[in-house]
Amino acid sequence: MKGKFITFEGCEGVGKSTQAKLLIKYLEEKGYDVVFTREPGGTPVAERIREILLDPTLEITSRTEAHLFVAARNDHIENVILPNLEKGKIVICDRYVDSSIAYQGVARNLGIEYIEELNKVAFETCLPDCTVFINMDPANSWRKQIGEVIEDDRMESENAMFHAKCFKGFLEASKRYKNRYLVVEPLEDKMQTFNKILEGLKDRKII
Amino acid sequence: MKGKFITFEGCEGVGKSTQAKLLIKYLEEKGYDVVFTREPGGTPVAERIREILLDPTLEITSRTEAHLFVAARNDHIENVILPNLEKGKIVICDRYVDSSIAYQGVARNLGIEYIEELNKVAFETCLPDCTVFINMDPANSWRKQIGEVIEDDRMESENAMFHAKCFKGFLEASKRYKNRYLVVEPLEDKMQTFNKILEGLKDRKII
Repeated sequence: MKGKFITFEGCEGVGKSTQAKLLIKYLEEKGYDVVFTREPGGTPVAERIREILLDPTLEITSRTEAHLFVAARNDHIENVILPNLEKGKIVICDRYVDSSIAYQGVARNLGIEYIEELNKVAFETCLPDCTVFINMDPANSWRKQIGEVIEDDRMESENAMFHAKCFKGFLEASKRYKNRYLVVEPLEDKMQTFNKILEGLKDRKII
Repeated sequence: MKGKFITFEGCEGVGKSTQAKLLIKYLEEKGYDVVFTREPGGTPVAERIREILLDPTLEITSRTEAHLFVAARNDHIENVILPNLEKGKIVICDRYVDSSIAYQGVARNLGIEYIEELNKVAFETCLPDCTVFINMDPANSWRKQIGEVIEDDRMESENAMFHAKCFKGFLEASKRYKNRYLVVEPLEDKMQTFNKILEGLKDRKII
């Protein structure tokens, strides 16, 4: 039995993790076996790579950054995502290959094709059954609205122009991979947003 | 003015670093501007990746290992190798892409084509002008002959079978990439070995 692979994508502070957690709670209550994971990270080796990627004291070129994400992702796919899917579990991941498309491909100007090529392991062996994209401009994110400023890692501390480009990247990805995308416009009431996600997943027969 | 890129390859304990250092000394005395570097490593980010790769407490899959070497190599190429070659310097590197061919491609059974594909950045933008291969069976290495056992990192502590496969990998690489290979059979007198290397490099108009 093959499980289901659902990823959450979107800019910083738009509620990805919150929505992912609501989905896990819902699915667990329905009796599903759910694994929650995140990128970069999710394995001991990938967490070590994450430390390098988010270290604000390191200067990392865009291409090296892209390669490091792929190394971490390969480890995550081999050790966590595929084995759990093979056991029939639902794997929910906070960020995945589409973040590389948006961040390195578009915002860092490496090109979507280049990122697709580097991420062959994801595109050829492990694409999500559904990518839930929280479609919200980062300039207007929930985190911004409540005045919370978290700029403690190398990616978060990039400027507003960078995050705007990431958003543009996600919009491009949502057209390029539209078959697996569930685009959700978030509402102020997080439960209303969650209900939209749930409907979308049911419509697509993912859950 | 474009410099020259010379790499040293071979199994553990066969005298790669010793020969590389002899070459640097020789070239510096002749007035050349030489940069000595090594893989994995050679930049702050690549040295951090090296720590992960050589950490004996980590379990790293073959594919993740291959990806990590590529990430470190990309950083090394972008920040050290290419900029110095563009300045006209001679860049000498202890291990490079051929070690990935031998170790991950052959010894870890990932296949040479897979490693070539992952290492596109090296094969397409930064191949050595000459790869000096110290052709010595690791079962009979200098280090083994003097009874020195160094097994303190994750790669060195692999068993004899693994190192024998690496040797086979280098032999395959020396045929596959024969145009850039200088195959040197080492002699007990390291200066005699060095003279062979020097002759080979001069014959090929590398120096």
